[in-house]
Amino acid sequence: MLQIGIVGGTGYTGVELIRLLVTHPDVEIKVITSRAEAGKPVAELFPNLRGACDLVFSEPDIKKLSSCDLVFFATPNGTAMKMVPELLAEGVKVIDLAADFRIKDVDVWQQWYGMEHSCADMLAEAVYGMPEINRADIAKARLVANPGCYPTAVTLGFLPLIEAGLVDEASLIADAKSGVSGAGRGASVANLLCEVTESFKAYAVNGHRHLPEIIQNLSTIVNKQVGLTFVPHLVPMVRGIEATLYARLTDKSQNLQSLFQARYEHEIFVDVLPEGVVPETRSVKGSNLCRMSVFQPQGGDVVVVSSVIDNLVKGAAGQAVHNMNIMCSLTENAGLTLTALLP
Amino acid sequence: MLQIGIVGGTGYTGVELIRLLVTHPDVEIKVITSRAEAGKPVAELFPNLRGACDLVFSEPDIKKLSSCDLVFFATPNGTAMKMVPELLAEGVKVIDLAADFRIKDVDVWQQWYGMEHSCADMLAEAVYGMPEINRADIAKARLVANPGCYPTAVTLGFLPLIEAGLVDEASLIADAKSGVSGAGRGASVANLLCEVTESFKAYAVNGHRHLPEIIQNLSTIVNKQVGLTFVPHLVPMVRGIEATLYARLTDKSQNLQSLFQARYEHEIFVDVLPEGVVPETRSVKGSNLCRMSVFQPQGGDVVVVSSVIDNLVKGAAGQAVHNMNIMCSLTENAGLTLTALLP
Amino acid sequence: MLQIGIVGGTGYTGVELIRLLVTHPDVEIKVITSRAEAGKPVAELFPNLRGACDLVFSEPDIKKLSSCDLVFFATPNGTAMKMVPELLAEGVKVIDLAADFRIKDVDVWQQWYGMEHSCADMLAEAVYGMPEINRADIAKARLVANPGCYPTAVTLGFLPLIEAGLVDEASLIADAKSGVSGAGRGASVANLLCEVTESFKAYAVNGHRHLPEIIQNLSTIVNKQVGLTFVPHLVPMVRGIEATLYARLTDKSQNLQSLFQARYEHEIFVDVLPEGVVPETRSVKGSNLCRMSVFQPQGGDVVVVSSVIDNLVKGAAGQAVHNMNIMCSLTENAGLTLTALLP
Amino acid sequence: MLQIGIVGGTGYTGVELIRLLVTHPDVEIKVITSRAEAGKPVAELFPNLRGACDLVFSEPDIKKLSSCDLVFFATPNGTAMKMVPELLAEGVKVIDLAADFRIKDVDVWQQWYGMEHSCADMLAEAVYGMPEINRADIAKARLVANPGCYPTAVTLGFLPLIEAGLVDEASLIADAKSGVSGAGRGASVANLLCEVTESFKAYAVNGHRHLPEIIQNLSTIVNKQVGLTFVPHLVPMVRGIEATLYARLTDKSQNLQSLFQARYEHEIFVDVLPEGVVPETRSVKGSNLCRMSVFQPQGGDVVVVSSVIDNLVKGAAGQAVHNMNIMCSLTENAGLTLTALLP
Repeated sequence: MLQIGIVGGTGYTGVELIRLLVTHPDVEIKVITSRAEAGKPVAELFPNLRGACDLVFSEPDIKKLSSCDLVFFATPNGTAMKMVPELLAEGVKVIDLAADFRIKDVDVWQQWYGMEHSCADMLAEAVYGMPEINRADIAKARLVANPGCYPTAVTLGFLPLIEAGLVDEASLIADAKSGVSGAGRGASVANLLCEVTESFKAYAVNGHRHLPEIIQNLSTIVNKQVGLTFVPHLVPMVRGIEATLYARLTDKSQNLQSLFQARYEHEIFVDVLPEGVVPETRSVKGSNLCRMSVFQPQGGDVVVVSSVIDNLVKGAAGQAVHNMNIMCSLTENAGLTLTALLP
Repeated sequence: MLQIGIVGGTGYTGVELIRLLVTHPDVEIKVITSRAEAGKPVAELFPNLRGACDLVFSEPDIKKLSSCDLVFFATPNGTAMKMVPELLAEGVKVIDLAADFRIKDVDVWQQWYGMEHSCADMLAEAVYGMPEINRADIAKARLVANPGCYPTAVTLGFLPLIEAGLVDEASLIADAKSGVSGAGRGASVANLLCEVTESFKAYAVNGHRHLPEIIQNLSTIVNKQVGLTFVPHLVPMVRGIEATLYARLTDKSQNLQSLFQARYEHEIFVDVLPEGVVPETRSVKGSNLCRMSVFQPQGGDVVVVSSVIDNLVKGAAGQAVHNMNIMCSLTENAGLTLTALLP
Repeated sequence: MLQIGIVGGTGYTGVELIRLLVTHPDVEIKVITSRAEAGKPVAELFPNLRGACDLVFSEPDIKKLSSCDLVFFATPNGTAMKMVPELLAEGVKVIDLAADFRIKDVDVWQQWYGMEHSCADMLAEAVYGMPEINRADIAKARLVANPGCYPTAVTLGFLPLIEAGLVDEASLIADAKSGVSGAGRGASVANLLCEVTESFKAYAVNGHRHLPEIIQNLSTIVNKQVGLTFVPHLVPMVRGIEATLYARLTDKSQNLQSLFQARYEHEIFVDVLPEGVVPETRSVKGSNLCRMSVFQPQGGDVVVVSSVIDNLVKGAAGQAVHNMNIMCSLTENAGLTLTALLP
Repeated sequence: MLQIGIVGGTGYTGVELIRLLVTHPDVEIKVITSRAEAGKPVAELFPNLRGACDLVFSEPDIKKLSSCDLVFFATPNGTAMKMVPELLAEGVKVIDLAADFRIKDVDVWQQWYGMEHSCADMLAEAVYGMPEINRADIAKARLVANPGCYPTAVTLGFLPLIEAGLVDEASLIADAKSGVSGAGRGASVANLLCEVTESFKAYAVNGHRHLPEIIQNLSTIVNKQVGLTFVPHLVPMVRGIEATLYARLTDKSQNLQSLFQARYEHEIFVDVLPEGVVPETRSVKGSNLCRMSVFQPQGGDVVVVSSVIDNLVKGAAGQAVHNMNIMCSLTENAGLTLTALLP
């Protein structure tokens, strides 16, 4: 059994990671840290875990974490970078679910995240943990940067088109919508039920932190800078992201349905729906799947992709477990054979 | 007091129209018809109207409707066109909240609505009831086609840009999201709470009936055929539409904020928000306002507009009352001075 | 026009009070205070009020408030009691929407509210502002304690039974359910959408602050101490309270339907539904009505009452405006002729 | 591997049963029937099952069902009773998730369900499938009547008190609240999102079909007729039942917390919470647990129990799988080690 540590298990990503790991056949959670909740049973904070997890939150302790085989960081941005060097030095593998190691260009990172990076020298080594792009590198990695939720849904949706060179990469549009759990578990007026239920809005229209991450992903694939307009929206629900993607077809000779099916034929966590069927976020709630469809309305030159994930699973904890499985040579879908809860 | 008739008052558009008219200072509802519910008190179907409306649904009866000054049709598509000629002949003014008279080209209409039009000769006379575009014609009209909900949010959002000729009209994109009340009050599995709550999806990606209506609106303004990709989505809430609009700027010399403010300065039901503020659908819930914002992310050449309405008010019953006020020379905002319910 | 002041207008009770007062024909809001938001336009905090209220939050200032005819306190418990004596001395009428003056017994108050009362000598003068019980006293009052939300729904539901002496007052049960807006607009993890939506729970089972208030109301009517078990619950919605009340009939000779209808025949804001019809909270959303039904399941000796209100209107701001109307000799329903929003 | 048949898999109980069985280690679903959907892939109706279940709905066929070891009926009331005799004759075990075999007194059943019972002679043999009461009989049963959702939550909550003889059984009160999935997946106006979201109401106050079932359960335990007032309510959410139970203590000498803990110490699917902690329905969403708490407010003579389940799992499909495990000598929690999804 792999010994696992979790740093910062008090947010929604944390509780989801614990939910997945407690039923994973090959791992054992050894320590879950939280400065704020140290001493409190995990199941007292998260009543769904009563009977499934009897750990108690503890103060973060490098020594204790060093005895683990792999440590997940489910912390705010800027925390992992302070502890990662020491853990790696001790031979521990690390998966950061925050953004510390996602952006290769440290200047871009510092601009969007508004802080100085404390171990920029590790950015080159860190592997961006999207298995559908980087499986081989993940398998060899010591340090994996787990992708953001929007970047997961958007990148996977554009991927077949971009790789095949069928669209104008200079004018991509991603209109993305997320449930409220993406905003985290912090106390705030903005995310009270009474503020967000029965309402819908765009936000961060002038620039969201996931924009440079998506641009980096897509630009790396085509080996030139792509142009992307990305507008996120808040949906009055808990879980789920839907991204509707628009691109101008520069080559209309391909069968898009076949293209998408072929690209993801061997990907166990990407499901291309039959032609004409639209994905619903509820079809992936609690599961690690990304489901998507591709359309060419009225046979015109605009291609539309709709891509859905559960932001807490495929967009965070599930993808992290998938990365762990690959890094540690476990079965890829171990602990991830989850059927979405419907209704 | 104007005498008002409502044909088909059993849907969500109907109950909203009644809610608005019972407090309107200048009108009196004389008759509300429903074949299915004839004989039942209106307030028995809609418990919010107990004490506010003591009418009983009656069988549709041209004679009784002819004694009204103005008749609203809150019926399914294809109903109004069968009764309108007779009512107009009797000197009754008509506002149709369905789609029968919205599309000028009868072939286009018949193709999208899947039925034959029974009075195509009246399409030329019918005035498209969007006051911000057609106020003068509405004032003189006998027959007004009340706009669809999506077309209202999308047309008003694109309007300043299109009129000013600042964008490439050939590649417009409208990513629109609607609450479930837009789907109506018919019994259906698809709109059960358990099917739509806590989920989000696109629908009708290959073509929605509101597409030709929006294209007609925008094309009329620029006097040439526009190109539009329109993707509607279903939001797990009751009321509200948000449309996020994307266009390529062909002229970046204009101050977009000023342009929008100037265009709507004298429109009582369009509210351009201060720069950087994003509209929420809840800010118009129950009110007749369209609120919107315009953005130019990272100073690039894509302009983004976010436009919100309450689909049942500005997108249906409220705009219909606005049209009535104009047609009957009443104060424009009579009966429409509603403040949105928040929270 | 009456000049109105509002102290503490940044909560849900505050915004609802403003929504009601801006359309009230006989009053003008002169000042809205908030220490935390002083200097910010009210409509910036509450976007639904854009165009309806152009006031700016100001620091609380006794002098400015003293120039008003009537001041509402929409503040946390313990604030009004510090400013009320001075305002009354200046001839200003006061309605406190918090709990400072609701409980006659200062010891009971101090026990449940956990603080010392700073003007206990005014408790005798303060009139409990439930018009259906205290109309005459309210008309003469300088200081009105606006009832709590649960006490409004529960008291009105038990009232006809208690007054008529038909039930065992020693074993009353009130199982009450409230939307989340009752918990206020403060930043908290507990009321995040992700914590409360799609869930239901009881809370404060061992004792809620509204328990002594309800007991006081009912005991005053029967002139002896009643016995009440009161369990509140949290419903995943914004507005609305439903109280299901249970009592043992000691006299089964009366027609309960007739009793309830007779008791509330002349009350404009209490609506007894036809026999067998169950009230829904949505039927009063945004309106000042309490709707209720009475049942005697299987003709047994348990009477069941279901009573619904909008906690922010009849349970707070609307009842406060009703009290103002009575105190200031205005038409009782002025500003309160609101039809509930449905759907 | 046990061969399993499901009759009527198109409702919410059906899809949940399939979700549980596809990951059950000891069973294989062989056939899922539906007259209405015959020929359609199951995963087309329930998109969450894509990749997890590749069966196609088939016409009900006794011969095919007879080749199964055990058949679940997830049909409307009145269907199972027509097919059960033949299946039992063929040596197939049966679990009926509907109500056909729950009530021992056929007259009571016929009165509440409004139809004639076609195999009343089997009522005596049928075992009421609540393992916490009937484990030994279930183990030997050929035919199990799976309990109703409300009866599960209410019976388990009253059980320790009733068995210990601590309360007045003549005046029990159960105020129960259910999510909308309890109403099923049939097309209906009443359960549209727009009709039930953001609202709360009681229903069936004068009598609900689960009343005689609960009374039978409790009366059997105490061996005399109990008196129960049962009022169900509809909560604007998908899954979950909370039952708040009230009883008058006739013996106050017992420690209620200890009593409850002792009663359920060895029950794997009943979780008595620590003193003072209130259960939330979300803590059991998707899991087979019943969590509960017991209170004695202000030390008075009323005991209050709050009991929560997921109506589709412990209240239906999960309890059915539990019964199957017992009937077929499988590990009791096989296929049921589910952690609730939170948030």
